Amino acid sequence: MPEQNNNGEKEVVSELTTGRLSVYLRCLSYLESIHQKNVSSHELAKQFHLNSAQIRKDLACFGEFGTRGVGYNVSKLKEHLVRTLGIDRVRTLLIVGAGNLGMALADYGGFNDTGFRVIGLLDISPEKIGQCSRSGIPVLPYDQLAAIAAEHNIEIGIIAVPAGSAQEVYDALATSNISAILNFAPIQLRTRNGVKLKSVDLRVNLESLSFYLKNAEDAGE
Amino acid sequence: MPEQNNNGEKEVVSELTTGRLSVYLRCLSYLESIHQKNVSSHELAKQFHLNSAQIRKDLACFGEFGTRGVGYNVSKLKEHLVRTLGIDRVRTLLIVGAGNLGMALADYGGFNDTGFRVIGLLDISPEKIGQCSRSGIPVLPYDQLAAIAAEHNIEIGIIAVPAGSAQEVYDALATSNISAILNFAPIQLRTRNGVKLKSVDLRVNLESLSFYLKNAEDAGE
Repeated sequence: MPEQNNNGEKEVVSELTTGRLSVYLRCLSYLESIHQKNVSSHELAKQFHLNSAQIRKDLACFGEFGTRGVGYNVSKLKEHLVRTLGIDRVRTLLIVGAGNLGMALADYGGFNDTGFRVIGLLDISPEKIGQCSRSGIPVLPYDQLAAIAAEHNIEIGIIAVPAGSAQEVYDALATSNISAILNFAPIQLRTRNGVKLKSVDLRVNLESLSFYLKNAEDAGE
Repeated sequence: MPEQNNNGEKEVVSELTTGRLSVYLRCLSYLESIHQKNVSSHELAKQFHLNSAQIRKDLACFGEFGTRGVGYNVSKLKEHLVRTLGIDRVRTLLIVGAGNLGMALADYGGFNDTGFRVIGLLDISPEKIGQCSRSGIPVLPYDQLAAIAAEHNIEIGIIAVPAGSAQEVYDALATSNISAILNFAPIQLRTRNGVKLKSVDLRVNLESLSFYLKNAEDAGE
């Protein structure tokens, strides 16, 4: 279920664009890694299977980094996207729930890479507190959330607890002045103003694969 | 990195639409659960924060379930979306990798709900084989992949192994006639024709939150 909130239409539009900016950033990082200096919207579209008109439209909002006939400067455009996405500085994260999902997220490459740093996992279980994830992220007591959030200036909280505890955790994160929350629990949360919530629904990916399988079946009939 | 593949533009378009159909399905399921009989595209858009023109456009492709002034019949439209997404029958899944991520996915609500059933987790570790996830999904020997895939007519394989093993697992899944693969390893895979690959990049969600935080900072300056 998508969250119900008070955001304006503008924010949704920019959120869709943000997703595409992340995709462009990955493409540009790859091109940079193979030492490609310039790329046209057409090339980008073809190589990474994107829409070239959409690329030009999205990037037009962010100033001019393209030269007709030469294309975009890969490094400059990448740098600009990094700044636009606000990952030119490190944002600190706390994961609530040190179960399988929390542990997997703590060690997930992209969560502890440029722009983000996982400070700890919070849990209520005395057996888990004091342990570490494989990559060394410590499990800390959940009842110290407010103190830890203040000490480390935590900006993003991740909810990786069962659905039944998710609302309580959301409220506790919001109360601890954490203003952006990523929720993995399959439940609709009552949101607060000024706290950005993003809920991840992994099932969508399976439904997309199912759609592909169904179309392949229909074509084969 | 988005995968490079040989799909046509048409498939990408339909994949984007598919994601939205999944969102509509969740909204309709919610409305059905509160016994709402009809809903207009306008109401859907307002309540769930979607775009009403986009809703009408997406749903127009799937026949006519709307009546002017009354809106869509919630149950009929839902049923139609379920069929369109091919989840009106059960598709069987295998998860490769019984680490934290694999275990979390095995117990993830939406992966063992209407339309999908997780048959098992495969692993090479003798200590893990024979164990079960919390919800009772068994860990089976990876070297029996081909036999298990054939016996249970597995349609979807999920890669939840470290990046270094992901290509090998992809190839083994494809060789076992599994034609749809969901990849969680942060690596670009060499794909085969006739095997649909979807890679999940959870970092995109963090970047979207970072974008929100940055804009809030800029507005507050």
